[in-house]
Amino acid sequence: MSNEPIRGIFTPNIAPLDQNGNINEPELRKYVDWLIERGVHGLYPNGSTGEFIRFNAEERRRIVEIIADHTKGRVPILAGAAEANTRETIQACEHYSDLGVRAVAIVSPFYYKLSPEGVYAYFKEIADNSPIDITLYNIPMFASPIDVETVRRLADECPRVAAIKDSSGDVPHMMRMIAAVRPNRPNFSFLTGWEAALMPMLLIGCDGGTNATSGIVPEVTRRLYDLTMGGKLEQARDLQYRLLRLFDAMLYSCEFPEGFRTALNLRGIRTGPGRQPQSPLQQEDLRKLQDQLYGLLTEEGWTDDLPTTEDQIASIVKQVLADLSKRGIV
Amino acid sequence: MSNEPIRGIFTPNIAPLDQNGNINEPELRKYVDWLIERGVHGLYPNGSTGEFIRFNAEERRRIVEIIADHTKGRVPILAGAAEANTRETIQACEHYSDLGVRAVAIVSPFYYKLSPEGVYAYFKEIADNSPIDITLYNIPMFASPIDVETVRRLADECPRVAAIKDSSGDVPHMMRMIAAVRPNRPNFSFLTGWEAALMPMLLIGCDGGTNATSGIVPEVTRRLYDLTMGGKLEQARDLQYRLLRLFDAMLYSCEFPEGFRTALNLRGIRTGPGRQPQSPLQQEDLRKLQDQLYGLLTEEGWTDDLPTTEDQIASIVKQVLADLSKRGIV
Amino acid sequence: MSNEPIRGIFTPNIAPLDQNGNINEPELRKYVDWLIERGVHGLYPNGSTGEFIRFNAEERRRIVEIIADHTKGRVPILAGAAEANTRETIQACEHYSDLGVRAVAIVSPFYYKLSPEGVYAYFKEIADNSPIDITLYNIPMFASPIDVETVRRLADECPRVAAIKDSSGDVPHMMRMIAAVRPNRPNFSFLTGWEAALMPMLLIGCDGGTNATSGIVPEVTRRLYDLTMGGKLEQARDLQYRLLRLFDAMLYSCEFPEGFRTALNLRGIRTGPGRQPQSPLQQEDLRKLQDQLYGLLTEEGWTDDLPTTEDQIASIVKQVLADLSKRGIV
Amino acid sequence: MSNEPIRGIFTPNIAPLDQNGNINEPELRKYVDWLIERGVHGLYPNGSTGEFIRFNAEERRRIVEIIADHTKGRVPILAGAAEANTRETIQACEHYSDLGVRAVAIVSPFYYKLSPEGVYAYFKEIADNSPIDITLYNIPMFASPIDVETVRRLADECPRVAAIKDSSGDVPHMMRMIAAVRPNRPNFSFLTGWEAALMPMLLIGCDGGTNATSGIVPEVTRRLYDLTMGGKLEQARDLQYRLLRLFDAMLYSCEFPEGFRTALNLRGIRTGPGRQPQSPLQQEDLRKLQDQLYGLLTEEGWTDDLPTTEDQIASIVKQVLADLSKRGIV
Repeated sequence: MSNEPIRGIFTPNIAPLDQNGNINEPELRKYVDWLIERGVHGLYPNGSTGEFIRFNAEERRRIVEIIADHTKGRVPILAGAAEANTRETIQACEHYSDLGVRAVAIVSPFYYKLSPEGVYAYFKEIADNSPIDITLYNIPMFASPIDVETVRRLADECPRVAAIKDSSGDVPHMMRMIAAVRPNRPNFSFLTGWEAALMPMLLIGCDGGTNATSGIVPEVTRRLYDLTMGGKLEQARDLQYRLLRLFDAMLYSCEFPEGFRTALNLRGIRTGPGRQPQSPLQQEDLRKLQDQLYGLLTEEGWTDDLPTTEDQIASIVKQVLADLSKRGIV
Repeated sequence: MSNEPIRGIFTPNIAPLDQNGNINEPELRKYVDWLIERGVHGLYPNGSTGEFIRFNAEERRRIVEIIADHTKGRVPILAGAAEANTRETIQACEHYSDLGVRAVAIVSPFYYKLSPEGVYAYFKEIADNSPIDITLYNIPMFASPIDVETVRRLADECPRVAAIKDSSGDVPHMMRMIAAVRPNRPNFSFLTGWEAALMPMLLIGCDGGTNATSGIVPEVTRRLYDLTMGGKLEQARDLQYRLLRLFDAMLYSCEFPEGFRTALNLRGIRTGPGRQPQSPLQQEDLRKLQDQLYGLLTEEGWTDDLPTTEDQIASIVKQVLADLSKRGIV
Repeated sequence: MSNEPIRGIFTPNIAPLDQNGNINEPELRKYVDWLIERGVHGLYPNGSTGEFIRFNAEERRRIVEIIADHTKGRVPILAGAAEANTRETIQACEHYSDLGVRAVAIVSPFYYKLSPEGVYAYFKEIADNSPIDITLYNIPMFASPIDVETVRRLADECPRVAAIKDSSGDVPHMMRMIAAVRPNRPNFSFLTGWEAALMPMLLIGCDGGTNATSGIVPEVTRRLYDLTMGGKLEQARDLQYRLLRLFDAMLYSCEFPEGFRTALNLRGIRTGPGRQPQSPLQQEDLRKLQDQLYGLLTEEGWTDDLPTTEDQIASIVKQVLADLSKRGIV
Repeated sequence: MSNEPIRGIFTPNIAPLDQNGNINEPELRKYVDWLIERGVHGLYPNGSTGEFIRFNAEERRRIVEIIADHTKGRVPILAGAAEANTRETIQACEHYSDLGVRAVAIVSPFYYKLSPEGVYAYFKEIADNSPIDITLYNIPMFASPIDVETVRRLADECPRVAAIKDSSGDVPHMMRMIAAVRPNRPNFSFLTGWEAALMPMLLIGCDGGTNATSGIVPEVTRRLYDLTMGGKLEQARDLQYRLLRLFDAMLYSCEFPEGFRTALNLRGIRTGPGRQPQSPLQQEDLRKLQDQLYGLLTEEGWTDDLPTTEDQIASIVKQVLADLSKRGIV
């Protein structure tokens, strides 16, 4: 994989599971094709949307292996590589490098809330030992924040640190990072993980995004990227507002990423149930959300793969219930 | 004052004080002229930058009276009208209406953190009794947040609620408010109080801003507005980055709004010291910040009113020290 | 008033209002007697429970004047003295000193969130100019936090700073303050504003509390204090659990301090409605809360002043509704 | 292991590492003896102090196996059993049950912040499938909070849920849980993970604690427990204040749990370096902290195992540096 700057829309893909809760390899391969055909610029397995933390180390490797094998270089891959400690993370970097992925993405240490100095030490040790480019992953709602000065410091000291994915959604924060880093590292990439602000982020200089909605409506996220980069601001703004509506519905109605999983099933990818149990009340809420999302996707015309008859919908619902039943939760 | 939509850059002006800590009326009048000459679209006395909470009720009225008298309709005025309770706030609305201001701005209840329902009840009572248009003021870092649903509800029920100033700096939040309100209230105005994101906010549909930096470099904030609204995005982006640098220096180096006060003195407006005491350590920090801001303003060429010789600077410093000395704190 | 250490239970009293929303002086005088007769050690007008921020400066003075006049030295008074700025706060200190109150209580600066250095500078200026002892008031959920080091610094430098009221409810935080201050200032008083932890706070060395529940069930709060200080831990613990139940019901069911106001009416003090408007939904919730509190007070036997017949209750409800109706909100 | 209620002081032990960063089994066995000899009531491997998240699944199992094997029933064991998902967590429960541990402890889901309903669903699925008693682990600074209603619900529905460890340090919160659960489940155990409040927590009804300081000064934490339970409040309070000083020094001077590791080395247990890299600046801070902790432990007389000569200290320092050097970070 070349060392071209990391640009465009990368999909933090969900990993479909089968009836036994194991990785559904055929469906994952189908999903990869589906995404690439609809125009995403790259794939990003083992991100937060991909629930990396709910898989074990072996499964995380397997997911990247399947995607690398199936992608066959059609698009670049950012592989989520955070493991239990730096030693195992570095081993994952080595393995993913061998698989030919473009770069790894490593989330800032979580659970413990580290100081900026601790965040620096963590990434420094990994970067000094990685054979592959590293994307810092800043998601302050879930993990220790990576502050601007730490990004600058790592960018200045570590050639392997080549990008940052920032999911704060804070536009001036992104500008501060760009202002701090780009003068010394003109090819460093800035990706937003918050598609609710994708258009404004691109307009202030971001290189792209790793956006969960691109796993659900890849053609729409891609179009938003193209319209914005092409200077068609009226159309881009309109699409940004419409995407926001879908994003909010998927994000705020249930536990993340259940809303995205629900929507993906409506588009014809059989995700199976997630690994976080849902209470009866939550399952009921998800059924309501499914109806809402079906309406929203239909209304927007983001529907090529949508079931078109009541029968098909009933069949999906039945299938979902069967999945849940197998798992013993309905 | 007409009922035209509230648009453009409104300056939340600092109120200069004299040697005794009282309102410095001549300097305030001079400041009003200085701002209008440099192109701000409107004035906004008794905002957070204007430290409304550190004046008493009589002083707040006096500040608006001076500004209304001196502006003489050259630009519209948003008058901060929050008083101790709804009864006194409504009286302030009546008084400011008589003075001919365009609208009042009322910050969400602070100290106690109210629920959305409580925020609604507060604004509803005021709006039902105000003779003048009301700008909701959302500043969640200081006051009870006004959520999207509450804005929509107030906009739908209260014709007097005509605008919102939002200082969260959260671009998708602004989009959510616009999407919720504009269909029913096409002339409702959306103003951002976070100039760090002024360009992106305007690009997603904001009508303007009430921005503290416009009190320091009014010509620059105005130019950023004009460039963005005129579609000159390259130039706008460049200016947004430069303004961000000044904004951050003024905001994050000391207690708010001391950095803005320090910078304003460098531009030739004699603010006098603020009413919040500064410790010796803080005063030392402010002296260092003054040097930094002087460098930054000079480097940017935002300097027409800057002192140009060492002597002039020394004189300013001496004056500031004399102010502080009078107050007994150096 | 002597300079004895500030000890025991001080009541942050609600200020009753009449049908026009003005201070109800006769009811306030009656309330003072009621509290003193039931054993509170002192009174604390213009605290958070007393909604100091919703009165104007003149009204705050009037409230303290009435209480000082009516108390006639029977119990010491802590007078809330925070005004718009240090100059006016110092004037309030002078006035309250003339009235013979034991000390003032000054909340940390709010709205703006000040740094520890700013909090220090604020209290230092006041303490250096006050003719009367000062109680620092730390309530981090509403105002700038006063950290341990700042308390220590003020205690060491300012003889007038004689006490702290801390409403964080954090027991180790209280211990840290005591450990930092008491060695140099053995008579410095530590009061907790969080009666949910009154017994544990007293057991680790607090001198007393300023507790909103003591305004509702003064005899109970006083008994909890006596039992704990007297080493009757079993009984104290039992009472602490029962008081917690009442505290939670009053605090978490509605906007603060509406639950306390509702309960006080049930005990026979006619508070009138508060100054923060309540929406129809909130009013409905308050009616339900009134029923719940009536049940709870009856069940506990904290009922000497409770209405004992359905008729009496109906009469109270009618009266409350009449109050609300006068105000035009039902 | 019997089903006796879980009571007393459980040590969340650090897992010592060797020169290669692997589990140092002999030192771990030595540490277990050292703790039991000094009086802790139980052991708690794979807690936050034990950095469970920085080991892989196989290592976590190995740690519990070593401790179970070496303890030989002398004291009960709470085994941290949280794995990547409920399936693997249930498998860990089964394995630890086979090893004869008293119960498992399972931290609330982290990284993603789950709603109360999601927290409930997670623990419900595990509890319905576990062959061994479960301790809920609430640590809201690191993981999704477990609210009072969810504890009550799980306690009522799941016989296997037998205890909660709460590290919030919030005394009224603990009281609310006790009031909600104990009536229906009189043997349910309440353990505090916040030894800064150990004495007050025990006085309001807690059954014990899982406290990191008990891994450093086990005899002191045990004595504090005994004094408090024995009603010797004066002595208990004095000891609680002294323990707080040590706790604060270990907790707030560096990343958790580096201060505890540093102190443990001073007591003669060779922990090896942790798995989270420390920057040069952090290492320097740790060297200073080591001096401070040495002084503090000596001053308190908590020193039976302390090195007594400069030579011994120098030797420890040399050893620590050698460890760090092997790891390539000095």
